[in-house]
Amino acid sequence: MSSKVDAKTQRRQKFEDVFPVLRDELLAYLTKENMPQDAVEWYKRNLDYNVPGGKLNRGMSVVDSVAILKGGSLTDDEYFRAALLGWCVELLQAFFLVSDDMMDQSVTRRGQPCWFRIEHVNYIAINDSFMLEGAIYHLLKSHFRSEPYYVDLLELFHETTFQTELGQLIDLITAPEDHVDLSKFSLKKHSLIVIYKTAYYSFYLPVALAMHMCGIPHSTTNDPYVLAQSILVPLGEYFQVQDDFLDFAGTPEQIGKIGTDIIDNKCSWCINTALALATPAQRAVLDENYGRKDAACEARIKTLYEELRIRERYAEYEEKAYTRIIGLIQTIPETPIAPAGQAVLRREVFKAFLDKIYKRQK
Amino acid sequence: MSSKVDAKTQRRQKFEDVFPVLRDELLAYLTKENMPQDAVEWYKRNLDYNVPGGKLNRGMSVVDSVAILKGGSLTDDEYFRAALLGWCVELLQAFFLVSDDMMDQSVTRRGQPCWFRIEHVNYIAINDSFMLEGAIYHLLKSHFRSEPYYVDLLELFHETTFQTELGQLIDLITAPEDHVDLSKFSLKKHSLIVIYKTAYYSFYLPVALAMHMCGIPHSTTNDPYVLAQSILVPLGEYFQVQDDFLDFAGTPEQIGKIGTDIIDNKCSWCINTALALATPAQRAVLDENYGRKDAACEARIKTLYEELRIRERYAEYEEKAYTRIIGLIQTIPETPIAPAGQAVLRREVFKAFLDKIYKRQK
Ligand SMILES: [Mg+2]
Ligand SMILES: [Mg+2]
Ligand SMILES: [Mg+2]
Ligand SMILES: [Mg+2]
Ligand SMILES: [Mg+2]
Ligand SMILES: [Mg+2]
Repeated sequence: MSSKVDAKTQRRQKFEDVFPVLRDELLAYLTKENMPQDAVEWYKRNLDYNVPGGKLNRGMSVVDSVAILKGGSLTDDEYFRAALLGWCVELLQAFFLVSDDMMDQSVTRRGQPCWFRIEHVNYIAINDSFMLEGAIYHLLKSHFRSEPYYVDLLELFHETTFQTELGQLIDLITAPEDHVDLSKFSLKKHSLIVIYKTAYYSFYLPVALAMHMCGIPHSTTNDPYVLAQSILVPLGEYFQVQDDFLDFAGTPEQIGKIGTDIIDNKCSWCINTALALATPAQRAVLDENYGRKDAACEARIKTLYEELRIRERYAEYEEKAYTRIIGLIQTIPETPIAPAGQAVLRREVFKAFLDKIYKRQK
Repeated sequence: MSSKVDAKTQRRQKFEDVFPVLRDELLAYLTKENMPQDAVEWYKRNLDYNVPGGKLNRGMSVVDSVAILKGGSLTDDEYFRAALLGWCVELLQAFFLVSDDMMDQSVTRRGQPCWFRIEHVNYIAINDSFMLEGAIYHLLKSHFRSEPYYVDLLELFHETTFQTELGQLIDLITAPEDHVDLSKFSLKKHSLIVIYKTAYYSFYLPVALAMHMCGIPHSTTNDPYVLAQSILVPLGEYFQVQDDFLDFAGTPEQIGKIGTDIIDNKCSWCINTALALATPAQRAVLDENYGRKDAACEARIKTLYEELRIRERYAEYEEKAYTRIIGLIQTIPETPIAPAGQAVLRREVFKAFLDKIYKRQK
C-alpha cells in the first residue's frame, strides 16, 4: 500500500516539476518584451496562485493517455511535451475558475481566498484570467509550432474554450444565485450545462490532445476523435452527476469541503431529479426552500431529498452510467490494427478514466 | 462636399451590412449545438450591444488596406472576407472594452450604459466578453481554414491579444483609479502602455491581416511584417498621444464626450509631460490634485497644464511624430518590384492611416 502511495506522490511530483519551467518561460517572454519588473512579478503571482494547487487530474490525464497510446514509457522529451499539454489544460481551467469565482462572488477556492479577493487584485483578476488563457497559445507556439498537428491543437483549444463558455452562459442564466426559478431547471437542461461546462474541457480535451501528440490523424469515416468524444462526454457527465451527488451526500471529510449547492441555487443533478419526482405538494416545498441563504431551508430540502430516495436514484444512475460507458468502450477494437508505427485508440485510455471515477467517495 | 459625405456614409454602411451575416452565422452555430433559445437570444443581444456602434475605424481599415494592396476594387467575395477580418478586429476590441469597463467600473460607453450595467447582466458580462473573443476563432475557422495563411491569422490574433493584455496589466497596476502614485508614471511607461494596450491591436493588427489576406508572405530577411510594424507602432503611439491631448484640450463638441483622464488618474501623455517639466513646487501641486474626484482639483491641474504650455509641447510633439512617420513610410520602395501576381507592401497603406490622424480635432 505505501508503495502505491509513493507512486502516486511521485507521479504528481514529476508533473508538478514541469510547471516552474513553463512559468519561467512565460516570464522570460515578458522580460524580453521590456515589461516593467512589477508587471513580471504580478504575472508570476497570478500563475503561481491560480494554476497549480488543484487536483491536477485533467493535466495528468494527458500524460497518462500519451503513455497508454504510445504503449510504453515516455522519453524525457516526450514526457515534457505531454506535461506541457497537460499544463495547458490546467491553464484553461485556471482561466475559467478565476473568472467563475468573480461571477459567482465566491469566497474560497482550493482552501485559499479566491484570487479576486486578494488585496489590490479585485477587478484586475479579469485581465489576469485572460492572461492565463493567453499563456496557452504562447506555450503551444513555442513548443509545437513545427508539428503537423499544431493547427489541430489550436482549433481544439478554441473549440473547447467556446463550448465551456456556452455551458457557463446557460448555467448563469438558468441558475443565477440571487433569483430562484425552478421552472428553468430540468434534467435535460442539467445534462446540457454539464456537457458544455465540464465534460468537453475536463474529459475530451485531455484525451484529444494526447491523441494528436501521438499522431493519430482525423478521419472522414469513423473519425477516432468522434469516437473518443462519444465515450468521454458521457463519462464527463457521469463524473459531474457524481460530483453533484457528493455535494449533497458526501461528508466534509470525504469531499474536503462543505456542500453548498442547495444554498447557492445550483442546477444540480439532485434538484433536477427531485423536480422530476416531486408531487405538487413536494414541488411547493422545493420552490419555497431551494436556493435560500438559510440553514433551515437547506435542511428542509435535504429531508425531501431523502424522502424522494435520491440516494437510491443515484445508485441506479451510477450503475446504468457505468454499464453504458463500459459498452461504449467495448466498441473500440480490442487489438487494433494500426499502420506500422502509428498509434491508435485503445480501450485502456478510457478504462483508466472510468476506474478513477467509478464509486469514488471524494 | 456632399458627395464626399455620401461616399463616407456608403463605405460605413457597406461594412456595417456584413455584421448581421456574421452574427447570424454565430447564432446558427449555437442553435446547431442545441443551446436553449434564451441563451441564443442572450448572445445575440451581447453581440448587437457591444460589437457595432463604435467608429469602426479599425475594422474598416482592414478593408481599405486590402483594396490598396490588391491595387483595385474588390470582388464581392474579396470584400466580404476582408470585412470579416475587420469585424474580427472589432470583436477583439469589444472583448477588451466590455471587460475594461468592468475593471474601471465605468458608467457609459459609446453613449449608452456599459454592458455590465444593464439589468440582469452584471457579472455575466465577464463570460460575455469571453464569447466575443471566442467568436473570432469560430469565424476564422469557418471562412479561412483552407488558406495557407490560416495559421498566421490565428497566431496574429493570439499574439496581439496577449500584447494588449500585457498593456492592460501595466496600465492597471501603474494607474489604479483609487490610488494615486505619480512616481510610477513616466513618459517611458506611458509609451510602453500605449504601444501594448492600443497600437498593436488598433494599427498593426488590421494591416497585418490585410497583408496575409493578400498573400504577402513572411520573410526571414526584411520581413514586410516587421517593416509594417515598425511604422504602425509609432503611428499608434502618435494616435494615442493625440487622444490623450484631446481629452484635455478638445471641446465636448469636438470629442463627443467630456474628458475625464485627470479625474480618473489616467497615465496620460499630458500628465507625464507635465511631470517631466514640473518644478518641485509644481510637482507638489500635481501630487495633491491629480486623480481626485473633485472639479477644483481638476481645474488646478488644467491651469498647471496651461502654465507648462502643454498645448505648445503637443504641437511640437505632433510635428516631430508626423515627420518621423513620413520618414519611416519613405523607407518602403516607391515602385515595389513584385513577383508576378504577388502583392507587396505599399506606402499608400500607411499614408491613408496618417492622413486620417494628422491634426484631427475629434
Ligand atoms: Mg462557481
Ligand atoms: Mg459559476
Ligand atoms: Mg460541485
Ligand atoms: Mg476604461
Ligand atoms: Mg482601463
Ligand atoms: Mg482617451
